[in-house]
Amino acid sequence: MFNKEIYQQRRAELKARMGSGQLLFLGNDEASINFKHNWYPYRQDSTFLYYFGISLPGLVAVIDCDEDKDYIFGNDYEIDDIVWTGPQPTIAELAEKVGVSHTAPLSKLDALVKGHCQILPPYRGEHVLQLSEIFNKPVKEVENLVSVPFIKAVATQRNIKSAEELVELNKAVTTTSEIHLAVMKAARPGMKEHELVAIATKVARDNNVSLSFPPIATINGQTLHNHYYGNTINNGDIMLFDCGAESPEFYAGDMTRTFPVSAAFDNRQRELYEIVYKAHRTAVEALKPGKRFMDVHLLAAETLVEGLKGVGLMKGDTQEAVANGAHTMFFQCGLGHMMGMDVHDMENLGEQYVGYTDQLKKSTEFGLKSLRLGKELEPGNVITVEPGIYIIPELIDMYKESGKLDAFINYDKLETYRDFGGIRIEEDFVITESGSDLLGTPLAIAPDEVEQVRSSSLSL
Amino acid sequence: MFNKEIYQQRRAELKARMGSGQLLFLGNDEASINFKHNWYPYRQDSTFLYYFGISLPGLVAVIDCDEDKDYIFGNDYEIDDIVWTGPQPTIAELAEKVGVSHTAPLSKLDALVKGHCQILPPYRGEHVLQLSEIFNKPVKEVENLVSVPFIKAVATQRNIKSAEELVELNKAVTTTSEIHLAVMKAARPGMKEHELVAIATKVARDNNVSLSFPPIATINGQTLHNHYYGNTINNGDIMLFDCGAESPEFYAGDMTRTFPVSAAFDNRQRELYEIVYKAHRTAVEALKPGKRFMDVHLLAAETLVEGLKGVGLMKGDTQEAVANGAHTMFFQCGLGHMMGMDVHDMENLGEQYVGYTDQLKKSTEFGLKSLRLGKELEPGNVITVEPGIYIIPELIDMYKESGKLDAFINYDKLETYRDFGGIRIEEDFVITESGSDLLGTPLAIAPDEVEQVRSSSLSL
Repeated sequence: MFNKEIYQQRRAELKARMGSGQLLFLGNDEASINFKHNWYPYRQDSTFLYYFGISLPGLVAVIDCDEDKDYIFGNDYEIDDIVWTGPQPTIAELAEKVGVSHTAPLSKLDALVKGHCQILPPYRGEHVLQLSEIFNKPVKEVENLVSVPFIKAVATQRNIKSAEELVELNKAVTTTSEIHLAVMKAARPGMKEHELVAIATKVARDNNVSLSFPPIATINGQTLHNHYYGNTINNGDIMLFDCGAESPEFYAGDMTRTFPVSAAFDNRQRELYEIVYKAHRTAVEALKPGKRFMDVHLLAAETLVEGLKGVGLMKGDTQEAVANGAHTMFFQCGLGHMMGMDVHDMENLGEQYVGYTDQLKKSTEFGLKSLRLGKELEPGNVITVEPGIYIIPELIDMYKESGKLDAFINYDKLETYRDFGGIRIEEDFVITESGSDLLGTPLAIAPDEVEQVRSSSLSL
Repeated sequence: MFNKEIYQQRRAELKARMGSGQLLFLGNDEASINFKHNWYPYRQDSTFLYYFGISLPGLVAVIDCDEDKDYIFGNDYEIDDIVWTGPQPTIAELAEKVGVSHTAPLSKLDALVKGHCQILPPYRGEHVLQLSEIFNKPVKEVENLVSVPFIKAVATQRNIKSAEELVELNKAVTTTSEIHLAVMKAARPGMKEHELVAIATKVARDNNVSLSFPPIATINGQTLHNHYYGNTINNGDIMLFDCGAESPEFYAGDMTRTFPVSAAFDNRQRELYEIVYKAHRTAVEALKPGKRFMDVHLLAAETLVEGLKGVGLMKGDTQEAVANGAHTMFFQCGLGHMMGMDVHDMENLGEQYVGYTDQLKKSTEFGLKSLRLGKELEPGNVITVEPGIYIIPELIDMYKESGKLDAFINYDKLETYRDFGGIRIEEDFVITESGSDLLGTPLAIAPDEVEQVRSSSLSL
């Protein structure tokens, strides 16, 4: 938890931006696994944490902009609870730590809310049920209560990271980097993918933090969200590891490395890795305030196409290829996303509000529709940069049959890459006044550096 | 997944027991952490797994007892999904593996259900919303659809573990035992509690399985459900570690060891450990078919009181003390619970139906109300045995003030134990025709054995 002044200042800024009205903040409750009281590791809602800092279940907060008052609602523990959970501070004591002087039991919430509060979009079933109860409305009408001005005010504020947030983000990415180095050093031919996930969870827990999302740890890197960890990793395979740790104050890290299971990449792997690495560096060099991230994404796509033309997998005019979406044969997703207390920061508020503007709408085209951030960068934005090349056999078949990209794709050559897999390189950056700064401890990223880690570890 | 015949036989048994009607089984969907698409590790509902075996989100099943037909509803993946998740089998292919020949998209579910299906109690918010949608009823009326005959039929069947289930339970407890041994060997003065949790998560993931519940890893063992891992463990502390792993088919293990951070217990720790150990052995020796677990619980309580009298913490007549609940000063919870695919097996169906009978109702008294299993044991039941002594300062104060246990508690002596902490010893057993068998690899449990593991590890 930060100093109370930080939370007071954050709430004051929100009140100033909203001007009037009542704002409701639902904290997260415990999340049930296979019966009510068997719980997943607790995670507080990020917006609740941002304005109210308390990482405990059973809390609801209200900001009254008209009266300039902040409230936290929750029930104090009783002796029966204390047997199971140990002595706990009261709600009033907790609230005092974040500068909130008005507290009450949850039963008092309805009287204050009186149906007037504005809400943010719910993303857990329990939220919908709780909102239905608080506002006495059928569950299907709950989404009508969501306030776009409230969403925009929160997104505008949270999109610019303050000094204390950048310290946390640096911690998160440093732990993330530590995890990746441990994995890159430990991987051995014959191991299972889940043994590398085991290392990641151990390093995170050794630091007393959680992972910020379920790791992707796979020799089938072409599957973008792969949570199967059952394959054996063998010499000749490339291992894609995408993983992030949280900081003590719940900020996220998010990095990807793709490394050879052998001591070095083979020729094809090295060629495509070089292309992704060049796209990564080109994108990072382009980061600066005022630059649209959509344009950085397209620049990375062009760099990928140039490289793919160089190895004979693509052909034709580079800009025309990108304009026709030909790069989506290899790069189906976005170049990056905002990162903060959520790894895809504020995805629950809606990507249109977090990554786009009233003038710049999110695309619905394949490829661009997966770009979570399109708008102009500002100092204090924290983002990921994660270009990749993914060879997806089903997509080759589909595009080939449609014939629409024949002018840009060399299908004969591509067929020989059918089982290649996927490569992604991902790092995290803060936008500065003049460009960008890498977050976290630098980690081997150039192909020679990656091979150096692998070969020196394998020779131990 | 087991052979399809096993699932067919299970469903046939359920149909025979129910006789008529339609039964609805909701599979679990993904569970959101801090935004919709950031998911906790996926866990299928245990009853769905028991009858339908498929561990994937987005599925609903129906058993029609009248027509003797089984249905699985779910939507096949489309190309957009395949980019993100890789190629997947169809619902029909999955269903075939568990012997179900009728499949359809989720949109066809309503037509079949027509409001007639019986349901089991929901335990996730998403279940309630889904049921409200399927049955076109307000969320508050969903609980009225729960069928007690359906609950009882499932509980009766799942309470008796079959041969293939016992193999899985043995695997789960063996991995659990492996975790505990690793933790007992690795603990060093100066470590943090979460470093021991890190070891547990690593051993589980090395085995490609999840933990069956959030570990309790604490030097404050008197707090029964303690999920704070931030303390440093020091010489002189006793470490309580309560943790379980799942098997590959999602059966649970659940064991507790309490060990000295130093090479040996001190005198007081050794004395109380001996008492808990004796209660454990006494309870285990009493396990047999026809024996009420409630009586085993009370026998363990008497053994604890005898021991506590021996060290001067209690006094008076033992049976009278237990009849007056005096043991709940030290032993506030139950002796054990059913264990299966859920660590508290079928807790979502209601403890009254799983652990009690129409004749034997669950108590509402402090202490006994936390005993999840009271009824007569049967061959094939799998249970935990977990006596403990917990010194809870707040409870001492409350009982002392009430004066009601003055005849049984030596408060003067107890005050000198105020900061003692807590001890629990827990193992898992299957009830056999003549008694019980320990599940999993035997692990150091007698005080000498525990000290032997500690002293030999510390001397490395």
